[in-house]
Amino acid sequence: MIPSAENRLQPLPLIETTALELPRPTLRDNTAELDRVMRRLKMEGFDPLRVHFLNMAGLVSKIRLHGQKMTALLSYWDGHWELMDVVGPGHEGPILGMAVDLGTTSLSFHLGALGNRKVLGQLSVPNPQIIHGEDILTRILFSRQEKNLRTLQEMILKTFNDAFLQITRRHGTLPGEVCALSVAGNTTMSHFFLGLDATGICKEPYIPAVNHFPMIHGGDLGLSLHPFAPVYVFPNVGSYFGGDLLAGIVATSMHRSREIQLMVDVGTNAEVVLGNQDWLVACAGAAGPALEGGVMECGMVALPGAIDRVRIDPLTLEPRWHVLGNEKPRGICGSGVIDLVAELFGAGILTVQGTMNTGLRTSRVVKREDGPAYVLAWGDETESGQDLLVTEADVGIFLKSKAAMYTILQVICKKVGVDLEEVEKIFVAGAFGNHMDPAMAIRIGMVPDLPPRLYEGVGNTAGDGAVMVLLDRTLLSEVRDVAGRITYVELNVNVEFMNEFRGALFLPHTDPRLFPSVNIPADQGGRGGF
Amino acid sequence: MIPSAENRLQPLPLIETTALELPRPTLRDNTAELDRVMRRLKMEGFDPLRVHFLNMAGLVSKIRLHGQKMTALLSYWDGHWELMDVVGPGHEGPILGMAVDLGTTSLSFHLGALGNRKVLGQLSVPNPQIIHGEDILTRILFSRQEKNLRTLQEMILKTFNDAFLQITRRHGTLPGEVCALSVAGNTTMSHFFLGLDATGICKEPYIPAVNHFPMIHGGDLGLSLHPFAPVYVFPNVGSYFGGDLLAGIVATSMHRSREIQLMVDVGTNAEVVLGNQDWLVACAGAAGPALEGGVMECGMVALPGAIDRVRIDPLTLEPRWHVLGNEKPRGICGSGVIDLVAELFGAGILTVQGTMNTGLRTSRVVKREDGPAYVLAWGDETESGQDLLVTEADVGIFLKSKAAMYTILQVICKKVGVDLEEVEKIFVAGAFGNHMDPAMAIRIGMVPDLPPRLYEGVGNTAGDGAVMVLLDRTLLSEVRDVAGRITYVELNVNVEFMNEFRGALFLPHTDPRLFPSVNIPADQGGRGGF
Repeated sequence: MIPSAENRLQPLPLIETTALELPRPTLRDNTAELDRVMRRLKMEGFDPLRVHFLNMAGLVSKIRLHGQKMTALLSYWDGHWELMDVVGPGHEGPILGMAVDLGTTSLSFHLGALGNRKVLGQLSVPNPQIIHGEDILTRILFSRQEKNLRTLQEMILKTFNDAFLQITRRHGTLPGEVCALSVAGNTTMSHFFLGLDATGICKEPYIPAVNHFPMIHGGDLGLSLHPFAPVYVFPNVGSYFGGDLLAGIVATSMHRSREIQLMVDVGTNAEVVLGNQDWLVACAGAAGPALEGGVMECGMVALPGAIDRVRIDPLTLEPRWHVLGNEKPRGICGSGVIDLVAELFGAGILTVQGTMNTGLRTSRVVKREDGPAYVLAWGDETESGQDLLVTEADVGIFLKSKAAMYTILQVICKKVGVDLEEVEKIFVAGAFGNHMDPAMAIRIGMVPDLPPRLYEGVGNTAGDGAVMVLLDRTLLSEVRDVAGRITYVELNVNVEFMNEFRGALFLPHTDPRLFPSVNIPADQGGRGGF
Repeated sequence: MIPSAENRLQPLPLIETTALELPRPTLRDNTAELDRVMRRLKMEGFDPLRVHFLNMAGLVSKIRLHGQKMTALLSYWDGHWELMDVVGPGHEGPILGMAVDLGTTSLSFHLGALGNRKVLGQLSVPNPQIIHGEDILTRILFSRQEKNLRTLQEMILKTFNDAFLQITRRHGTLPGEVCALSVAGNTTMSHFFLGLDATGICKEPYIPAVNHFPMIHGGDLGLSLHPFAPVYVFPNVGSYFGGDLLAGIVATSMHRSREIQLMVDVGTNAEVVLGNQDWLVACAGAAGPALEGGVMECGMVALPGAIDRVRIDPLTLEPRWHVLGNEKPRGICGSGVIDLVAELFGAGILTVQGTMNTGLRTSRVVKREDGPAYVLAWGDETESGQDLLVTEADVGIFLKSKAAMYTILQVICKKVGVDLEEVEKIFVAGAFGNHMDPAMAIRIGMVPDLPPRLYEGVGNTAGDGAVMVLLDRTLLSEVRDVAGRITYVELNVNVEFMNEFRGALFLPHTDPRLFPSVNIPADQGGRGGF
């Protein structure tokens, strides 16, 4: 269940169980029922140990029911333990925990068994808040009315509860059996999840309501988990650097690395962390949803039916592609778009400026009312029966996203005074992290021109990090420590950014020296011609 | 507001306030709203500092409303602080706290201002649970059905909320302004208050459900206080040694004394604590409600209309009495009963055996169907117009109570190996503690024959102790410490007790050597005749 390479000998999960065999109460030791259990647990090291008032009466009756033999469930609250339940002998099942990557576009749930560190099941569902805005900004504007904030929160909570039911049912259990929850979301999503005013996030000086959230009892949130299950929400570092990124850092372990490493997480925002065990610098900027495949006419997320790989024959200009799942193509996902733009550029169909060369001898480049387009799949090949095409306008939007991403990487390195060559590892997280072909991303100038082996697709690091804290409670203080030592650079207000950005709008860049490995057509200012 | 002689220079109340003036957030310090306040408070020493999840959204909007200047209210949770509220400048009122003596028969409420240590108001109301049983045992039997337990709890909670409203209204404020609550009750009452199963209390081996209660948020209990007000319930030591007694120890400070001291709290039970700063031994036994004036036909609690002092002319056998308030007598309270029995005995109307001497030349001793009686007040003197009298049967019941009380004192001293002469101070708490005349109590053999100056009436120590923890949070750990080091002797199962008890049923005792100061009539075996 642990994505990180590290293997602890002794697991330290968020929930511990311990079997108790208590002496029968006597006139000489007539300690109260609950106190007897608490005393024993403290002796076993669960100290300081608390119990929630509302749980007390229920615990007492269970303790009375089970008599001398029982198993106690203890939850770790980052500084103290809480006695959350007791079960009779023979009723100890696996201790279940749930980890959630709470994304703007979709939510992914991971049900795990804490004892044997197994992920039992996963489930991804769209974020239902989308009806109130595709992007964060729209939703924050919507949330300015308190009842709308409540609506957004309830949408997430309902999605959680529905998903809990669905995923636990598959494994023959019930949501009430889930004993712990960890949630990694961006700052806005975490605010909505907890019903917190998010309006400060989108206006200067970009102040979230809360960065460090307390641990919460599942019941207080209205979740269908065990009512006293601890709910951990990853803290934020700033308005545009949320708990999802912190979870990502934990998942890559870059905060423990001696070498300088870089992590890029591209969703609707591009978020970057640079550093090692001694220092960490982060920045984030709007990359636009283009990289997620969310804006293009034919864009889609990386689900079955999405084209995720594209090659274009430089002579015939005919494409070959790969579709996720055993389906006809329905759209093109992030990694597919990168491939497509890189191949269109490599084949000379796209110019350095990102315009489409309409003078080529191919039926693939067509003219539409809104400008030229490249037909990736004809109607008879697609699910819908319609041509699947990418327009010059689509490419324009995409170039802004890729330019944003490259610029962020460049600016953060400059800020810190690190040369890109010093970076020993680049983790690419996010929806297309696992699929992105580094050579393709380099060709279009989306990522720096470094040896492709330095790039490592790490996929959903937020979800992985969320799983990891369930399995290793020592990470709670590590996360807090990392959140405290990250230097966050606000890019939204960085003028330098805009200058760099303009140069990065080209393919691969206005300054070809930055991309020595990319073969730029001679007639477009490549080395060939000069 | 502090009954104890101790005067701290620096008060350390359960609730602290601190005025904050925060820098305006900037792009360079865009710490989240709540984190900014928390950070500052931690710097000021409120560390560890928490915030309850359900309070978070409200706090954020108040912080936003007040901008840079505000006053934070912090509650102490015995190991950490909690940010409970923020108010705007100029809105800081006195910080109000409520202390409750939660008795079986009546509840007394004390509203105090924590800042200037003033008790603003008091209110006593009967315990409405009485309709389900006068005594604890009957109520516990009633509570065996879960819905009945819930009924008993709701009765207390409603009484609390009604009293909060009444007492705060008198002072021009509202229950929601009350920021802390401390409750001292016996073990059973504390269980009912918290909705805990009390059935273990009345059957061997006498196991309460819980001895050490967690701090509770007022809102979780359904109280009308500030919803995040900490509610502190004194812990119990055993089934028959409750938080009221611990509060009493705190109020007398006997746990800090170098000399050996003794505290007796007489309500329906007689509870005794013996010890000093190094050791504490306690025991309790049923004394019966007679000492509270609760059983005699003419008995009543010490309210206006109660006779609290009685003298009987040894020659004329005519009584003189004092009535509480400016009223005609309606009954006789505990201290009045002690006086009455002592004077009846002193005047030779009662024999050593507690029987009434009917051969005396007085119209005060009358014969009733149920036996002889002494008329304390004629019908034309009383409120009801009926004669106020005490029967031989009443005296019999009372003698059992006084015998129980003396026996407890004797047994506990023997247990510890302390001679009664070594005791330097005897605190008499409980309803008649303030009124009891030690000389009278000695004469009837209710308390040991020690110099009367050693006796100190301390009244409602439970209420005083409950007030004190609001004003001095360091007492929380002191109470826990005291609860931990008290050796509790269960008298209900002590055979020795029964032997001693039989001797103590006499006036003053079968062994007159135990009461050298008492002048026993020569014809009744006193020294005069031997």
